[in-house]
Formats: sequence, structure tokens, C-alpha cells
Amino acid sequence: MIKAAIVGCSGYTAIEAIKLLLRHPEAEITAATSRQADGNTIDAMHPQLTNRLNLVVEDLSPEEIANRCDVAFCCLPHGASAPIVSKLLAANCRVIDLSADYRLSTPQLYKKWYGEEHTDPGRLGSTPYGLPERFADHIRDAQLIANPGCYPTSAILPLAPLIQHGLIEASGIVVDSKSGASGAGRTPKVGTLYCEINEGFSAYAVGTHRHQPEIIDIVGRFAGTDPQLVFTPHLVPMDRGILSTIYTRPRSGATANQIRECLSQFYENHPFVRIVSHLPVTKYVANTNYCDITVRENDGWIILISALDNLVKGASGAAVQCMNVMFNMDQTLGLGA
Amino acid sequence: MIKAAIVGCSGYTAIEAIKLLLRHPEAEITAATSRQADGNTIDAMHPQLTNRLNLVVEDLSPEEIANRCDVAFCCLPHGASAPIVSKLLAANCRVIDLSADYRLSTPQLYKKWYGEEHTDPGRLGSTPYGLPERFADHIRDAQLIANPGCYPTSAILPLAPLIQHGLIEASGIVVDSKSGASGAGRTPKVGTLYCEINEGFSAYAVGTHRHQPEIIDIVGRFAGTDPQLVFTPHLVPMDRGILSTIYTRPRSGATANQIRECLSQFYENHPFVRIVSHLPVTKYVANTNYCDITVRENDGWIILISALDNLVKGASGAAVQCMNVMFNMDQTLGLGA
Amino acid sequence: MIKAAIVGCSGYTAIEAIKLLLRHPEAEITAATSRQADGNTIDAMHPQLTNRLNLVVEDLSPEEIANRCDVAFCCLPHGASAPIVSKLLAANCRVIDLSADYRLSTPQLYKKWYGEEHTDPGRLGSTPYGLPERFADHIRDAQLIANPGCYPTSAILPLAPLIQHGLIEASGIVVDSKSGASGAGRTPKVGTLYCEINEGFSAYAVGTHRHQPEIIDIVGRFAGTDPQLVFTPHLVPMDRGILSTIYTRPRSGATANQIRECLSQFYENHPFVRIVSHLPVTKYVANTNYCDITVRENDGWIILISALDNLVKGASGAAVQCMNVMFNMDQTLGLGA
Amino acid sequence: MIKAAIVGCSGYTAIEAIKLLLRHPEAEITAATSRQADGNTIDAMHPQLTNRLNLVVEDLSPEEIANRCDVAFCCLPHGASAPIVSKLLAANCRVIDLSADYRLSTPQLYKKWYGEEHTDPGRLGSTPYGLPERFADHIRDAQLIANPGCYPTSAILPLAPLIQHGLIEASGIVVDSKSGASGAGRTPKVGTLYCEINEGFSAYAVGTHRHQPEIIDIVGRFAGTDPQLVFTPHLVPMDRGILSTIYTRPRSGATANQIRECLSQFYENHPFVRIVSHLPVTKYVANTNYCDITVRENDGWIILISALDNLVKGASGAAVQCMNVMFNMDQTLGLGA
Repeated sequence: MIKAAIVGCSGYTAIEAIKLLLRHPEAEITAATSRQADGNTIDAMHPQLTNRLNLVVEDLSPEEIANRCDVAFCCLPHGASAPIVSKLLAANCRVIDLSADYRLSTPQLYKKWYGEEHTDPGRLGSTPYGLPERFADHIRDAQLIANPGCYPTSAILPLAPLIQHGLIEASGIVVDSKSGASGAGRTPKVGTLYCEINEGFSAYAVGTHRHQPEIIDIVGRFAGTDPQLVFTPHLVPMDRGILSTIYTRPRSGATANQIRECLSQFYENHPFVRIVSHLPVTKYVANTNYCDITVRENDGWIILISALDNLVKGASGAAVQCMNVMFNMDQTLGLGA
Repeated sequence: MIKAAIVGCSGYTAIEAIKLLLRHPEAEITAATSRQADGNTIDAMHPQLTNRLNLVVEDLSPEEIANRCDVAFCCLPHGASAPIVSKLLAANCRVIDLSADYRLSTPQLYKKWYGEEHTDPGRLGSTPYGLPERFADHIRDAQLIANPGCYPTSAILPLAPLIQHGLIEASGIVVDSKSGASGAGRTPKVGTLYCEINEGFSAYAVGTHRHQPEIIDIVGRFAGTDPQLVFTPHLVPMDRGILSTIYTRPRSGATANQIRECLSQFYENHPFVRIVSHLPVTKYVANTNYCDITVRENDGWIILISALDNLVKGASGAAVQCMNVMFNMDQTLGLGA
Repeated sequence: MIKAAIVGCSGYTAIEAIKLLLRHPEAEITAATSRQADGNTIDAMHPQLTNRLNLVVEDLSPEEIANRCDVAFCCLPHGASAPIVSKLLAANCRVIDLSADYRLSTPQLYKKWYGEEHTDPGRLGSTPYGLPERFADHIRDAQLIANPGCYPTSAILPLAPLIQHGLIEASGIVVDSKSGASGAGRTPKVGTLYCEINEGFSAYAVGTHRHQPEIIDIVGRFAGTDPQLVFTPHLVPMDRGILSTIYTRPRSGATANQIRECLSQFYENHPFVRIVSHLPVTKYVANTNYCDITVRENDGWIILISALDNLVKGASGAAVQCMNVMFNMDQTLGLGA
Repeated sequence: MIKAAIVGCSGYTAIEAIKLLLRHPEAEITAATSRQADGNTIDAMHPQLTNRLNLVVEDLSPEEIANRCDVAFCCLPHGASAPIVSKLLAANCRVIDLSADYRLSTPQLYKKWYGEEHTDPGRLGSTPYGLPERFADHIRDAQLIANPGCYPTSAILPLAPLIQHGLIEASGIVVDSKSGASGAGRTPKVGTLYCEINEGFSAYAVGTHRHQPEIIDIVGRFAGTDPQLVFTPHLVPMDRGILSTIYTRPRSGATANQIRECLSQFYENHPFVRIVSHLPVTKYVANTNYCDITVRENDGWIILISALDNLVKGASGAAVQCMNVMFNMDQTLGLGA
């Protein structure tokens, strides 16, 4: 059994990781940490875990965490994650970091978009991005994985193979994305109250969202060409799910069929990416690790539409998938594909 | 034109009061106050008011408020309201208090349920309860109105006339109530985040909710007999609306038809209470000042079901209705009945 | 008092029109028709109208409708509307048609997108499009108004003035729109059941939606230049509201500020279009006749974001606004601006 | 591997059964039938099953179904189920019937509440009710199981042990239940459209719901005493979940603690019933087979509150649990407790 620790266990991605690991036949949760630890068991914090996980939440040091587990799922906010991660690594613990801290390629890019100096700049660029559909070889032997952002996964999976194979233009791309509210996290703010989000729909962080550089950076790493694109996130009154509608231009006469075929071949042996003929619906992938992708055309544009569950394939499911790769298990173990 | 002030303008009942007053042909809003006042106009705080209300939010003293208005709608939390209200009254301003501070009949009852000494105990018991369907005569000349609680309105309107006329037993009553999330207010807490409430349903404050004594107290004042009842509130994943399912026993062979007839006659000249034959639905009364009530029977029980919009008939609509009575206007003015 | 008939009173736009007219100080509803008429009053069909509108639903002929009213709000499906409308006009009744039947400029375009020959082709092209912000002069004296589509209103209002003034390119435009479920109508289908839509988000009719040619046609009529654009509608799990995110390219160095200024001036005297600095939220315009528009830029694109209530400014509110213009009243009468 | 057939595969309980069986380590789905079978695979009907279940939907006879499986999950409407079930049994197929057809004890009761003669009356009364927490001994060897109704499960589990042990009165009980919309099925009706249910809350079938006699009948079978109770169902704007608030009177001085203790002991070895100290929330049991129960008191009443997922513990999860018992496997297999 793989011993897993949940570092920062109070939020939505942490709960999701716990639920997935409880179902995993080869993993057990041996520690759950929080600065809010008050000596209670985890079901006091998350009543849905009553009788399911008998574990006291503790405020452990990185060294104590490392002693307790083979792999740590780090569910801390960006900025707070890197200092802990570097200590976990120093203590020989393998880490899957669900924050954004190790995703970008350079400290400069990090500083530009996150507004602060990176505290562990040496690992940027060399840390594998946790997308096993492309980077499994690097993930397998890594000590540290930068788990992908939710929006980026929905954009990179459809875009990158098509840019790599020259079927679409790498510039002039529009990524219009829509996410359920769990993506906004569990810290209380007026803007995420029920009565603010329910029966409302809006764009946010237009032109300033940190997932825009992440998409560009990783598509470049994936496909060999940095794309030029704009990304606009929107908030949907629902719990979970991301749908991205991506407007691209075909290259050298590529047809929708050729594009569909390219994606089907690329993901043929990747069970969590489904190239579908129906229009993706977030509800069809909710609580699963699938990313559904379809291809449409309209007046000279190729429109790629992808859907995934932001807490599963967009966060904790991808993390478990990475764990499976890191420990030489079937990618799908415990993920129900 | 009646000059109205909104005291404590950041929450949901305040926004609702503002919207209702903007439509009122005989009222104008002349002040909006908040401790969060930062020199900005109210549309900075509530973007939906852009171009609709040109008013700077200010942190005014009770005396300044009194100088600016004929009536103050006090939208402060309980406990915080009474000290302001007593100063507004001292400055000769009429007040409609939307908090719970002046609803109960005695300081003892207030202390028992609210856990603190009342700061203005002399007015308890003599302050009219703002239910014009029963207390219009007292409301008309009052300087201060205790605006009813949302749940109590949904319980008192169906129960009180039937107890008064001896058609149902005054004991053994079950009031099972369900409310949309706006009743929980606009202060950020984990429990009222979108992802906590959406797709969930639960009871809360079972046996401890402060609206239980309010219902008992006011039904007693209304009907002349203190009832014995239990009240259980529940949280519904929706913005607005309360539905109460009330289980009662008929007295001396009263039939459902007689009970229906009693209610119809009682509310004949009260346009905002509709005794309906269909099963009430909160959506049918959303954004209106109606309270819909129906009567059903099941195996010896008489079941009363009422529905209203907690922000309108359950709060700010009732307050405007009271204002209409206080200023000798048609009760329905600006309320669209 | 203007006598108004609601033709086809069972659906969502009809209910909305009724509610708006009930509040209108210069209009009264004198007829409500339906093929489902069964001799009952309208509150049997719509319980929310109990005590608010005392009217029997009837299956009236166009001639009978014309006898009863000054203006008919035609709330029938496309295709079913034109045959009734032409008879209403023949009987000297003024008509506001909420269907799509008279919106497009030519019978050819209608046939291409709606799949059938138009039954009243002579009126296409000469029927005013019911957007008073641009076509008030034609609306004023018209016998028939083609009330705008919900999505088109959200796209035309921001796009057309900018194309007219040469501030953005007329080609390469992406209109990514999202709508609440009331736009799908009230006819029972699996796809619009609660459990299919709730907690789901999806695109639909990609590349085939009939509002794409309507946007192009009317922007052309409005601005003098036919744009080239693609339109993708999405379904949001909420009742009402449309938000459109529109990606355009500035022309000849136009800045976001210049573009914002152009829109502000264009709509200066049009109270229902608000050029706002905050990011529009459908909830902020729900149950109002406003269309909120903002301007943002991102890496060379100008992004226009608009929000409106599809049942109000996107349907029945626009219809009442047109009625106001047709009968020489203030545009805002009864619409609460 | 147990071969399972899904009879009537188009609705919500069928989809849920399929998803649960896909995860079950000892079961495989070998047939899925529907009168709407059109030669397509099941993912054409349920796109979420793409790549997960490769099976053509067929319109099979009971005999053909029996040939293909060890156990049939019958997901047909009441009335339609019994004729098929009796043929499946005749063909030696074990059956778990998710309809109401075999739940009640007598044909008279069936006729009274379902309005029709039962077509297979001989099996009423002797068919085990599929609640393994009480009837496992009968379920183990049965050919046919009457799978419990969703509301009844939420009422029987808390009530029956307490009546059996004489801790609460068996009369004067109020069961006030609230359900998500999936309980209303997938057949298109106006009343279950998104825009009818969303932002609305209502009671329905007051005094006439068929689960009232089911609760009374089965509590009687379970506890040895027929209770007297009234049941009122309500519709909550959410997909899944039932919460029942049950008002009872303690007997001979029983305290809330004694009642809690009784339930804890009764369900000690039944992992899917959790006696919890927190107030149950449907969201905490969504997508699980748990039923959470708590005990509260208020002014002489004992209030029992239970929550479960109507599609899992209230339908298909209970069915899989029964299958586990029928085939001598651990009750929790594939159900993730």
C-alpha cells in the first residue's frame, strides 16, 4: 500500500483527493494536516467522512509528514506551497503539488503573473507538468509533480496536439472557459456566497487570469511552439465542471474531420480523454476523471469544445493519475475508467 | 414625497428595500448609511443600482439620519439595532426596524433567546408588530415598528386567525419551515458559500431558533391565546422564498372547508394574503409581497401550507407596507398587488 | 388606457409580458388567448396570477382579438406566428411579434435558416426591428414590430455602434453567448428537464443557431456594414439571463478607452443600455430591462461583455418598450428605469 | 462474475444502477433493454457512458433477458413492472424490482393506493422488502426483491427500531420529507422542467402520496406494530437527496440520549446507516449509499432527521446492496463504504 498524506486538508481539492484515495485499492491515507488542526478527527471538519476515515487532523512539520508517507498531496494555496514542498523534498518525500507554484517554466514568468519572487526558483522548468497524456515519462521518476491547473487542462488537451501536428494556427486563438464555483475555493468571501453566485453568470479576471500564461507555457512545452491566445474565464452557478469553447483557425486546409482524426489518434491509448461526437456537457463528466472533447466548424473557424470536472481531471483526479504513474501502477487504478 | 433613509445598506434586505422604494411613487431615498462607507456612491457597493440611485453611502449619526428623512428603514443586525433606533426616535425620526430587537413582548424573553440584556427594554411589548393584516391600527400612529421575522410571518398569518376562532387546537402544533439562502445574510461564512448550500438540503438550529418564541409570542398577541408549538427551519438551495408546512389538529369537529372559509373571510380585505386552492410554490410569490396559504387534511391533521418571499413579505416588502400605513397611503402602493 | 392582448399566453415570454403590463400605468390586458383554452381563468394556467388578473383564457380568432385590443403581443412559436400576424394586421390591430418570423430581411434568408417558405414574405425587410435604441423612428408609426431575439440584442447593442463608427473590424468576430434555461421555452422535452440542466453546462446548436444570421443581418442594417462573425450559444443552469463575451479586433489603433467612450456617447440618452466599468453579471440585470455592457482588452483583442435578462430586455421588456414608443409614451413607462 | 441485466434502461435509477455496477468488482452488465431500443449502443442514449459500457440497447423479451443474466434490475414504472417480473421469475431469473409493485402487503392496499388491480397478487406479502438492515435473512434466498421506495427508506430506518423497542409512540407521527428532483423521473412534463423547479419549493401530493401506506405497512412488518402517521413530500431544487424531518413523541419518559443509543446499537453492524451527532445534510450523502440519522428534542417532541441519496440508498444503491446479499457477498462490495 502506498502511504499518502494530505497536506492542507480543509478545502475542496483536499476533500476530493481524500474521497478518491479512499476508493483506491493500493493507497491509504496516513496523515491529514491543517493549520486549523484542533485535535479532532477529520470527520469533525468534514462530516461526510464519518465512519470512512479515522484520522486526527494534525499540524505536522514537513519532516513529520515525510516520515508518515510515500507521497504527499499538497493542497495549499500558491505561494504557501513552495516553502513546504521544498522541505518535503529535502526529507525525501515525493510530492504532487496541486498549487500553481511549480507549473510555470521560469521565475520571471512566475513573478510577472503572481506578483512575488518565487522562493524555490531552481525547480521551475525542470518540474514535470502532471499531464500523463503527454509527460508520463517525466512523471514516472519524478520526486515532484506540478499538478495542472483546471482551466489549462481543458485547453491544453485539445489544443496542443493540433498545434504540434500543424493542423491549426498557433496564433489568434480564443479560449472562452466556464467553471463551476468550487474552483473559487472554500475561503469565505462575499463573492462566493450562495446568493451572489446562484442565478448569476459573469466573466471574471478578464485579461489578468494566471491560467492564461500557464496555457501558453505548457502548450509550448507540449507542442514545441508557443501559441498566441487569449483566455477568458467565467463563473457558472454550479458546483463542479469546466467547459472550454476554443476558437481556432485551421492550417493549410485542414478539415474538421482531419482534426478530429488527429485527436482520436493522439489520445487512442489515453482512456481519460474521450474524443466524442456529441457536444460535451459538464454533467456527463462530473465526478469522473474524463475530459471530453469534440470538434465543430463554423464559417472558417474550427471550434474545439472540452469538458471536465475541475475537482477531478482538473485537480485531484489528475493527481491520483500521476500517483499511479509515479508508482508504476495502471494509470486508471481507483479512478474508475 | 416621503423621505426614506436606509440604515445599514450593505445587506440583502437593504438592497430589497432600496429596489422597492425606487419603484414607490410617493417615496424617495435620501440617505443610505454604512459603517463601510468609503466616500463612494452606492452603485460601487451594489453595481445593480448603476444609474438608478445617485447617492453617496455615508457613515451618518442617528441625528444626521433624522435630519435627512421622515422614516428610517433600519437594516442592522439584532443587538446593533436598538441603540441606533432609540437615538433615531429621540431625534423625532419614525423608524421601521427590520431587526428582531423590538419584536418580543418582554426583556426576559429577549434575554432568554438572544443571550443579552436588551438595551432599550422599555419599548418591548408596546412596539407594534408590523403585520398590517392584524395590527394596522397600532402601526398607523406609531413612531417605531418592529418589522416581522420572515419565518414568523409565514406561520402567524395561517395559524393566528384559526386559533383566535377556535377552529384548531392551540397545542401540539408542528411548524416545519424551509427557507432560501438569502435569509442567512450577506456576511461571508463557510456555511453560506455556494458550494456548501448548492445541491444540499438540511435542517438547522433545531429546537434553538429565535423565531420559535417570536411565533408563539405574536400568535398569542394576535389571537389572545399563547400556542404551544415546535418550529424547525431548513435551508433550501435557492435565493428567496419560505414555505411552511404546519401540522395542526382541528377543534370540535372543524372541517378543512370551515377552516379555509375562516381564513378567506379573515383576509378578505387584505390583498397580500391569498387563500388559494393550489399548493403554494415559493416561485409563485417570488419578488412579490404575497403570502399564499392553502389548507389540506390528512388522517385527522389539518395541514396549513404557506409561501412567501422572505425578502419581500418576509422583510422589506412588509416594511414598505407598514410605511404606507404609517403615512396614510394605500397599503399596496408601490408593491404591485 | 392602451388595450393589450396576449396571443399565446402559456409560455414564459407571455407570463413575463403579462407581469410587466400589470405594472404599466397606461395599459390593461383585455384578452389572453391559447389553443389550450378550456374555459378557465388565467390563474388556473398560471397560479402566480391569482387575484392579479381576472381574465378567461380564450381561443379567439385574429378578428376577435383585433376587436378587443389596440395592440397584440404575439407570443407564438416561429412559423405559427406569421399567419396569425397577417390576419391581425388585416383587422387593423397593431402587433408586436415576439417570434422570429419578421426579423430577417429576406425570404431567402428565412428559408435557409428556418427550413420553410415564409408565408408572408412581403413584409420581410420593411418590418422595423424592435430595438428603440436605433430604430425608434420606424417603430413609432409601425403597425408591426419584429421584436428582437434575446441573443441578438446582447450582441447587436455592443457591436453595431463600433462597426458603424469604424472602431472595430467587421470581420473575425467571435460571439460566445451563454443563456439561462427559460430561453428554451416551456414545451416539455427531456433536454430541458431540471435534472438534465442543473449542474450542467454545455454548448448547443454550434454553427447552426438561427440567431447567427439575425445578428449579422441586423448589425448590417444598424451599422451599414454586414459583419462576418461566428456565434456559439451555451446553456447555463439558471432561469434567466444572457451574457455574451464578444471578441473583436480594434481598427486603426482604436483603444479600449475610445471604444468605451463611443458606446457611452451612443447610448447616452438610452436609459436601458448602461456602459459600465464593472464586469456585467446577469444577476445584476435580472428582472430589469437593462443591458449592461463593458469593454476590456487582452493581447490585441477588444472584448465586449454584455448582460441582459432574456425574458425582459431580450423579449417582453423590449416589447413593452416598443409599445411605449408606438403609443408616444416615455420609453421607460412601466419598466422601472 | 454475476451477470446483471438492466430492464428499462432509459431513466435515472437505471443510469445509477449501471454506474454502480460498472464499479462493482464481481458484476458485469450483460443486457440493457428498452422499448425505445433503436439498434444503437447505450452511449447514444446516455453519452456519459461513452467508452465505459459497450452494449447495444435491445427490446428483449423476459425469456431472452433471463437467458442473459443471473439477476435483473427492473427499472420500469409501477404497473408495467409486475407483468414482466412474473415472466422473468418463471424463466428462473432472479429479480430486484425497483418499482413499487411488490412492496405492499396486500392486493387490497395496492388497489386502494394505485387505483388498479394487481396483476400478480399472489406474491404480495411474501416478497421480501429490500432493506438488508432488517430483512437480510429473507433477501438472501429470495428470487424476487421489492426494492424500497426512496422516501420510505428515509422514514423506516429511523422510526422502526424505536417503535419496536417502545421508545416512541406509534401514533401521532409527522413525517415531513423533502426530495431532489430526480425522484420525479425522466419523462418530460411541464412540472419537472428546469424553470418550473429551479428557485421554487413546494409540497405535492399532500395526503395522497403512495409512500405513506408503504411507510406504515413496512414499519409494521419491521417493528410488529402498525404506526399511525402522516407523510408530506416536498420538492427541492436539487438533483438528488432526501431529507426527512420526523416528529414523534417519546414513550414512558425515554430521553433523546436513550433514543440515540437505541439507534446506534441497532445499526452497529450496518455500515450504511450512520447515527450522527451533526445535523444531516443531503450533500454529505450524495453519491453514497449512506443514510445519516440524528436525534433532537424540542419541547416534548423527539425529532428524527434522516438524509440519503434517493438514487443510491433510496434506489439503485439499495438494489446493489440486495444483490450483494443475494449472492453471498459482502454487503458493501462495490458500494464504497
